[in-house]
Amino acid sequence: MHLISIDDLSAADIENLFSLSDGFLEIASRSIKKVPSLRGRTIINVFLEASTRTQSSFELAGKRLSADVINIKGSSSSVSKGESLKDTILTLESYRPDVLVMRHPQVGASRMATRYTSASVINAGDGTGEHPTQCLLDLYSLRRVYGRLDGLKVAIVGDVLRSRVARSDLFGFRKMGIDVRLVGPPTLMPPGIEYWDVPVYNDLDALEDVDVIYLLRMQLERAKGKVPPVPSLREYSRVWGLSQYRVKPGQRVMHPGPINRGVELSGDLADDERSLILHQVESGLAVRMAILLTAVAPAAEEATG
Amino acid sequence: MHLISIDDLSAADIENLFSLSDGFLEIASRSIKKVPSLRGRTIINVFLEASTRTQSSFELAGKRLSADVINIKGSSSSVSKGESLKDTILTLESYRPDVLVMRHPQVGASRMATRYTSASVINAGDGTGEHPTQCLLDLYSLRRVYGRLDGLKVAIVGDVLRSRVARSDLFGFRKMGIDVRLVGPPTLMPPGIEYWDVPVYNDLDALEDVDVIYLLRMQLERAKGKVPPVPSLREYSRVWGLSQYRVKPGQRVMHPGPINRGVELSGDLADDERSLILHQVESGLAVRMAILLTAVAPAAEEATG
Amino acid sequence: MHLISIDDLSAADIENLFSLSDGFLEIASRSIKKVPSLRGRTIINVFLEASTRTQSSFELAGKRLSADVINIKGSSSSVSKGESLKDTILTLESYRPDVLVMRHPQVGASRMATRYTSASVINAGDGTGEHPTQCLLDLYSLRRVYGRLDGLKVAIVGDVLRSRVARSDLFGFRKMGIDVRLVGPPTLMPPGIEYWDVPVYNDLDALEDVDVIYLLRMQLERAKGKVPPVPSLREYSRVWGLSQYRVKPGQRVMHPGPINRGVELSGDLADDERSLILHQVESGLAVRMAILLTAVAPAAEEATG
Repeated sequence: MHLISIDDLSAADIENLFSLSDGFLEIASRSIKKVPSLRGRTIINVFLEASTRTQSSFELAGKRLSADVINIKGSSSSVSKGESLKDTILTLESYRPDVLVMRHPQVGASRMATRYTSASVINAGDGTGEHPTQCLLDLYSLRRVYGRLDGLKVAIVGDVLRSRVARSDLFGFRKMGIDVRLVGPPTLMPPGIEYWDVPVYNDLDALEDVDVIYLLRMQLERAKGKVPPVPSLREYSRVWGLSQYRVKPGQRVMHPGPINRGVELSGDLADDERSLILHQVESGLAVRMAILLTAVAPAAEEATG
Repeated sequence: MHLISIDDLSAADIENLFSLSDGFLEIASRSIKKVPSLRGRTIINVFLEASTRTQSSFELAGKRLSADVINIKGSSSSVSKGESLKDTILTLESYRPDVLVMRHPQVGASRMATRYTSASVINAGDGTGEHPTQCLLDLYSLRRVYGRLDGLKVAIVGDVLRSRVARSDLFGFRKMGIDVRLVGPPTLMPPGIEYWDVPVYNDLDALEDVDVIYLLRMQLERAKGKVPPVPSLREYSRVWGLSQYRVKPGQRVMHPGPINRGVELSGDLADDERSLILHQVESGLAVRMAILLTAVAPAAEEATG
Repeated sequence: MHLISIDDLSAADIENLFSLSDGFLEIASRSIKKVPSLRGRTIINVFLEASTRTQSSFELAGKRLSADVINIKGSSSSVSKGESLKDTILTLESYRPDVLVMRHPQVGASRMATRYTSASVINAGDGTGEHPTQCLLDLYSLRRVYGRLDGLKVAIVGDVLRSRVARSDLFGFRKMGIDVRLVGPPTLMPPGIEYWDVPVYNDLDALEDVDVIYLLRMQLERAKGKVPPVPSLREYSRVWGLSQYRVKPGQRVMHPGPINRGVELSGDLADDERSLILHQVESGLAVRMAILLTAVAPAAEEATG
């Protein structure tokens, strides 16, 4: 089983992953946080773009499943010797890994990798393409908090233009019956957004009636050498940045991290009890254990003992 | 249990760690150098400042205790995306680690981390602040060599100004009854040293009657862009560098490593049988296993089987 | 047992390694790809020169043998603080590792390391010196494909000047009875090659009657700041680059990787069924498991169960 796009999964697949995740969440609260499910299996994390949280989440997930995990990182990679991605994947395939977890700066890189390996490929972010495990952990956090997904109202706010999270979340949230809208300045909406068939608002008033405000990270690191889509960070922050005062009592705030305190949200709001940011990280570890286990042994739902 | 400053430990705590270390030292001499004590536990090494020896020592210590160990390093860290230390720690906390081992260029970083995690935090060096596990391994080496600590005379020599080791060693050595003095040029003594209540000498004659000469590393890498505290390395080496001829027959030489051969000591002296430098490294691995075990299971003294 | 040069091994030693490798190759095809042979043993990979494939191959080999593996890499190493190689090795020796796997940009670095450690040292490439595990995996691939080594005809083609693989392969191939010749432009042959006692050809006609064409990687990354030994890559590729059309039906093509598609060989040829490039990678993992096991327990041939 590959996981390249959130559209690779049906609603039933997602529910199965969440049942597994419930077990792993419980295991994470024990003192012995480890199960033997993937002993002797090989997971290779291929991260050809910088990452701390996603990479460490997958590494720890693999280790807690007792798999052998090795990390291939961009800076230490043959890529610096000019090897193509195809040859990198073909080489790793010769080790007969069970799973390749892959992050790459180019859209479509994970999809391409599936052509050259018999391992399960998990897309851990491909440029501005997709980030399906982020969508799954977001959904799992919502399910844990609200007990349901169907009928929730979520606004995804901010830098949609450069966000793979926005794409995966939009598609995955709708699949589970969530009512999604996009909110942000027109310059941060991608060209062709009218074909996404989603309501787009250019005003924070659109947050009034939602259950959850999902703030996107301003992707400052993807701005190099381009005309910036906002006049200045300070101005963006003043108009679009959220503080405690702009969030209503019953609303919840999510963010994929790492957060820019003082840009898309205030530090106060990040630390507010309405924030689910750390809840999401915790969900991520459990969901990724479920994904890895399913990737290796699709029918292993009962193996989490 | 956190270990931020050597002052967090009483003399009795230190003796308990050394009893555990004796067991781990013996295990390191077996062919199977591993015990199951921390199986299923999670140790995260957060090294946001370059390190080889301390990081590898902790990593190996964790693995020989059968823990799951993951390494977060500065260059590959979200820190490059502008995330604050607080958010890095809060994120890692969501994985429910048992121990965070932390090195950071800022004084006080490990102390701050304790606010945001329920894991035990081990300070593996915070700027020019402290390096308590270095102090413990130094004490353990002295205890192994002399059979006692109380009443030993030790001179700490050289770059006190920029040395966290000097600070931790001074405080820890005195706690165990060691008679400590500082020796070096006035420009390498920190401002306010008169409040440390320790004899300071600006002449190598002060080494005459000590048992142990503890040489500090010239922290060349912390000198960037500042007026250098010594006129030139060659001149420093000629006046303050130690060679075999300046060390008396019964004296021992220590150094926290990595050494600058030809600067604070000659290559001959580094390789001399009076040097304890490698003995210290060996002690370090055993002591760090004891620290990790105690951090996870404070009453586990008998678990080293 | 150290493995610094392919000449450290007799033909019988090599045959023993291959018997072990056969077992490990079979294990790699299982779903549980792990044996307990080196449980509790410590392997330190010291890679002070960039590498992906050799480093990951050794790391995975160690983990599948259940050893504790730690990686020391150049960029994160004390080397950046000016520590000498001697002191790095002495420090690591204090951890009592069973094996040091070492890559270093200087010829002779691994040989030097053997002076300062009681661990087995495996040379994973020392500058333009040797790369004996590459030779062993190449031999093992040939043995798997042809069922024999004695009497095979192999042409080693291209950048002999800057290739440690050429050196190790030449010496090792001849030891096993292979008929070797070197082929390439005179400017890519090292000075003094006349003393190697091997036929040298400056024309691709010399490939006519060989069984195997072993293409070397153009070591572009070793060319910095020197007069390039070929006028241009495009010209080199046009004259010396191999495509499908220049390889005869029964011939096989090998390459140590990473390949430069479009330089020493065409992409079509790399992907051709006559190419053994990925077969070599697969052989490498099995051979390295055999080498590590033998390095720790020379008489452990029967331990692969």
